[in-house]
Amino acid sequence: MSGYAMNKEDLQARLAKVEGQVRGLQRMVQEDKYCIDILTQLNATTAALRAVGVGILDSHVRHCVREGIERGEGDAKIEELVATVARFVGR
Amino acid sequence: MSGYAMNKEDLQARLAKVEGQVRGLQRMVQEDKYCIDILTQLNATTAALRAVGVGILDSHVRHCVREGIERGEGDAKIEELVATVARFVGR
Amino acid sequence: MSGYAMNKEDLQARLAKVEGQVRGLQRMVQEDKYCIDILTQLNATTAALRAVGVGILDSHVRHCVREGIERGEGDAKIEELVATVARFVGR
Amino acid sequence: MSGYAMNKEDLQARLAKVEGQVRGLQRMVQEDKYCIDILTQLNATTAALRAVGVGILDSHVRHCVREGIERGEGDAKIEELVATVARFVGR
Repeated sequence: MSGYAMNKEDLQARLAKVEGQVRGLQRMVQEDKYCIDILTQLNATTAALRAVGVGILDSHVRHCVREGIERGEGDAKIEELVATVARFVGR
Repeated sequence: MSGYAMNKEDLQARLAKVEGQVRGLQRMVQEDKYCIDILTQLNATTAALRAVGVGILDSHVRHCVREGIERGEGDAKIEELVATVARFVGR
Repeated sequence: MSGYAMNKEDLQARLAKVEGQVRGLQRMVQEDKYCIDILTQLNATTAALRAVGVGILDSHVRHCVREGIERGEGDAKIEELVATVARFVGR
Repeated sequence: MSGYAMNKEDLQARLAKVEGQVRGLQRMVQEDKYCIDILTQLNATTAALRAVGVGILDSHVRHCVREGIERGEGDAKIEELVATVARFVGR
């Protein structure tokens, strides 16, 4: 299994952790914590979300894109994949 | 008020919305939704978090950094600010 | 052809333009232009580079990854692709 | 001096290096190098550009924003700074 692959349980566990991090952020704002500490925690949260995104991407390429190509319907899948990565990298 | 400024209520409301988005992601994974749709939602979630980050940064510069400078203790505040932005932009 | 696809001539033309943008940045620094204007130009330059990256990625998936999968050697190609995207999105 | 600060000579030297990296990318495309190797080099180039951006930002906050605040004209400078960072972090 790839270093980036995540199965459904991994994804659920990681998203549950992200949810906890977002609740932690709300608590920090509520308690008027120092801005820089909130930003540090917020940064860790977006990094955790992006890691989940890479895991989903891994599984998408490994299954949907590969099967599309094997069925001779690769073009549409590749188009969609690249468009998604393009939005992911911020353009 | 700046276009990026958010008060405590704004921040709380936006973070509560992000929390809902993360729960939506867990539901999408649970229901085996199409990967690309999950990634689209995940992308919207990180964008929403980054927007909160910019709001916090705005208020930090407007208050803490400004006051540090006015008290003649600007250097440490500026150092810390730039280090935080550097991590924020991914390096 | 995909909206992201770039052939060799496109890539060369775009990279030549990026090179010009980087020389423009050096000139702006040399002439002590206003920081914010330099940062705006720098931002446009990284966006142009990322667009080239998406174009190369498009062609990579469309050719190398697809052919790897068709030859039954998809795993290594997919592994490498996801690792590259992961670095690309900043983790 | 801050770990992020760059003087004019530093900035020029780093931008000259980025220009060399962009020329290297053109050569790699010209010689049909492997896509993944081109993307790795492209990634290093955008990271180098972002580092220059952080250096410029550091000097901007340390000089222009600080002086604006000391002259009692901080609001406009802070507004502009946050808008620039917001574009920098991709929104």
